Amino acid sequence: MNASSDSGDSGSLVAGLRCRLCGTLYPARPINFCPEDFGPLEVDYHHDAVARTFNRAAIASRPRTMWRYRELLPLDGPPTVGTQVGCTPLVRADRLAKVLGVSELYIKNDAVNHPTLSFKDRVVAVALSKAVEFGFKTVGCASTGNLAGSVAANAAAAGLEAYVLIPDNLEAGKILGATVYGAKVIAVSGNYDQVNRLCSQIAFKYGWGLVNVNLRPFYAEGSKTMGFEIAEDLGWCAPDHVVAPMAGGSLIGKIYKAFKELEKHGLIGPVSTRMYGAQASGCNPIAALVKSGGKRIKPVRHPNTIAKSLAIGDPADGDFAASLIHATGGWSEDVSDEEIVAGMRLLAQTEGIFAETAGGVTVAAARRLIQDGKIDRDGSTVLCITGNGLKTQEALIDHVARPQVIPPNLAAFEELVGLAPVDSAGLVAAS
Amino acid sequence: MNASSDSGDSGSLVAGLRCRLCGTLYPARPINFCPEDFGPLEVDYHHDAVARTFNRAAIASRPRTMWRYRELLPLDGPPTVGTQVGCTPLVRADRLAKVLGVSELYIKNDAVNHPTLSFKDRVVAVALSKAVEFGFKTVGCASTGNLAGSVAANAAAAGLEAYVLIPDNLEAGKILGATVYGAKVIAVSGNYDQVNRLCSQIAFKYGWGLVNVNLRPFYAEGSKTMGFEIAEDLGWCAPDHVVAPMAGGSLIGKIYKAFKELEKHGLIGPVSTRMYGAQASGCNPIAALVKSGGKRIKPVRHPNTIAKSLAIGDPADGDFAASLIHATGGWSEDVSDEEIVAGMRLLAQTEGIFAETAGGVTVAAARRLIQDGKIDRDGSTVLCITGNGLKTQEALIDHVARPQVIPPNLAAFEELVGLAPVDSAGLVAAS
Ligand SMILES: Cc1ncc(COP(=O)(O)O)c(C=O)c1O
Ligand SMILES: Cc1ncc(COP(=O)(O)O)c(C=O)c1O
Repeated sequence: MNASSDSGDSGSLVAGLRCRLCGTLYPARPINFCPEDFGPLEVDYHHDAVARTFNRAAIASRPRTMWRYRELLPLDGPPTVGTQVGCTPLVRADRLAKVLGVSELYIKNDAVNHPTLSFKDRVVAVALSKAVEFGFKTVGCASTGNLAGSVAANAAAAGLEAYVLIPDNLEAGKILGATVYGAKVIAVSGNYDQVNRLCSQIAFKYGWGLVNVNLRPFYAEGSKTMGFEIAEDLGWCAPDHVVAPMAGGSLIGKIYKAFKELEKHGLIGPVSTRMYGAQASGCNPIAALVKSGGKRIKPVRHPNTIAKSLAIGDPADGDFAASLIHATGGWSEDVSDEEIVAGMRLLAQTEGIFAETAGGVTVAAARRLIQDGKIDRDGSTVLCITGNGLKTQEALIDHVARPQVIPPNLAAFEELVGLAPVDSAGLVAAS
Repeated sequence: MNASSDSGDSGSLVAGLRCRLCGTLYPARPINFCPEDFGPLEVDYHHDAVARTFNRAAIASRPRTMWRYRELLPLDGPPTVGTQVGCTPLVRADRLAKVLGVSELYIKNDAVNHPTLSFKDRVVAVALSKAVEFGFKTVGCASTGNLAGSVAANAAAAGLEAYVLIPDNLEAGKILGATVYGAKVIAVSGNYDQVNRLCSQIAFKYGWGLVNVNLRPFYAEGSKTMGFEIAEDLGWCAPDHVVAPMAGGSLIGKIYKAFKELEKHGLIGPVSTRMYGAQASGCNPIAALVKSGGKRIKPVRHPNTIAKSLAIGDPADGDFAASLIHATGGWSEDVSDEEIVAGMRLLAQTEGIFAETAGGVTVAAARRLIQDGKIDRDGSTVLCITGNGLKTQEALIDHVARPQVIPPNLAAFEELVGLAPVDSAGLVAAS
């Protein structure tokens, strides 16, 4: 059931970490910024070596997990954590398409990702497998909620000690969805950016493996598998439009990187996908940058939205996300809390998929982008649903009617639902 | 992405519905008991026709959904509802195995089943696809919680009108996890058996397609896919022991039926699997029957357990489940609410899987069965985890510590976790 071993277990496929600003290449170590210019680092691969085994037939022969794309994931050996993550359904969404007015719509449903129901299981599988390779015994993260649960669960399954730091205002499902695994979950009275800064200090001082701090370059690569899977499940073809929710701004860039890597290796044709980023109006630094056409993120100091998982005011990859969106001809929208709730309900009622608030952001932003003509109605569009609605029940509880209660008899049922009572011969009773 | 069409779309594979008491064969219609003796009906197949295409190679070539076993699912054409359900991970659980003291342990993780995070998506996919074939426009169910969400979601995705009836004491996650999809959810002041009786009256009077009433013979077949998948993922081999939670008593029998059908068609060798049923002590009619060695279920009149999804006092398939358990050399255990909570936590902390209360029942019962020597420590054992912990948060909320809150600085963190403060040169500070 685990990844088989036809390739990719030599370590030689990773060339190193390359600075996204100055291009310097560093050895693959647990560092996340360039010592020269503080630019973020990204994994680079020996693409000649990758090409030897990375092809459609080889991939198709492998188990349906994210590790079927292992040549382009930055491990030296086989994965040891999260070996069964990924390969979530890509659902053709004709009923939602009709409401939104597009012809070809898909939902990538990471709300059912194993084990913790968000796309974060992908990044954590890579980061913690890498942490094991590096010899870390203690791991951790700064999280807006989903990462907390994923690190806690995957660390538990791997027998690693985990410290999980979160803002102190998260939803009950996000909190229990982390504490239940026995990790040390610590709430910080502050916003995500403060939590993140504290985690940087911890990683630096104690030398622990913090998945989105000093392991971030490896971690981030995991998100590419969402893109690989979308293209494979479309029959080896990148869609015309992808709408992805943005917090730190990493996921959206990695989905695009995945398409470009598939193109480079000849698994798909030329990529002309436009990338669309979705945010909540209560925390929209990347969407604002896209709309303003500026160069640098203006951090949002006091995020205020029900989409808490996206509430990162000072996004690490925000500048890159905004310029990618422009470069591909895409756009970005931010939506109100009311629109988020409406988006969650619309997705549930048309496609039977219960997404968390971030999913409501994606659906609502897509709706707006289609209405405004930013997404054309004829192309293919994929909406990335990245987390599960059972973790953010607070957002809906006042917006969905509670069931009415009846006594256990047929007359009460008929009265409630307004059915004409019928006699036992099947005729409507005279009443 | 949907099931391909290499076979099984002729309708000729279903022989009919056979009475489990008198053996009479009826045409495949929406009926659930024999008009002669009121025995339950079970789908029978034309096994000669099945054998033509039902083999390992054909199955391996098909998409990873429950429909890869389509020859032994009772549809006349391709599925139209729940086309992407199933093929959940089978996880090797070495850390839990160590605690339980067995050598080879697996978790079948239906807590991440698409779309609604329980094994009920399997039965609903079959029942609603069949409902569409029969031409029903209105569907419904009587549910202890998971079925409610699954019928509501899958009906929404299929554009069917749905009535979902539940007892009025369910968990918040189960309720919102049904109402969000826009189904008509009705709470009945009474226990499941009263809800079920009302649904029988509704199905009879209005001729709707109630998945676990008049569609029950078709519905129940969906559970076989859990058994098919377990055997395929073990490398075409049935395990030595399976522990499954029991409510109505259907699932456990269908898992075994799946193994026997694979054996009949030569896909696995002779089956010697022992079946073990898990219940909560607060509603243990089947476990009590197994232990007493009697012939007939004594209904539990007032179920009282945190495992609400298993709280069926008068289980429709209880007699059959008990005799199957005896016939295979298995056994049954029931466990207290405290043991259920401990079982949920143990699974989360060893394997990173957050199951609902029914999963706690399974783990706790397995623990007892192993301790008592009913499950031998050397064979292979599969635990069926059938639902997600985010739907039953109430059960744990008072048993898992809430995160402690600290201000956003390193000193506060160090004080909380008891780390010796270290100066910036990495030396322990004199204090
Ligand atoms: C559910 C969900 N979707 C999307 C994102 C955004 O990911 P990124 O930070 O890579 O932009 C997050 C981040 O936490 C998330 O939790
Ligand atoms: C989570 C869960 N597990 C197991 C069962 C038991 O299934 P059965 O009624 O087939 O015995 C149920 C039934 O509702 C359930 O919800």
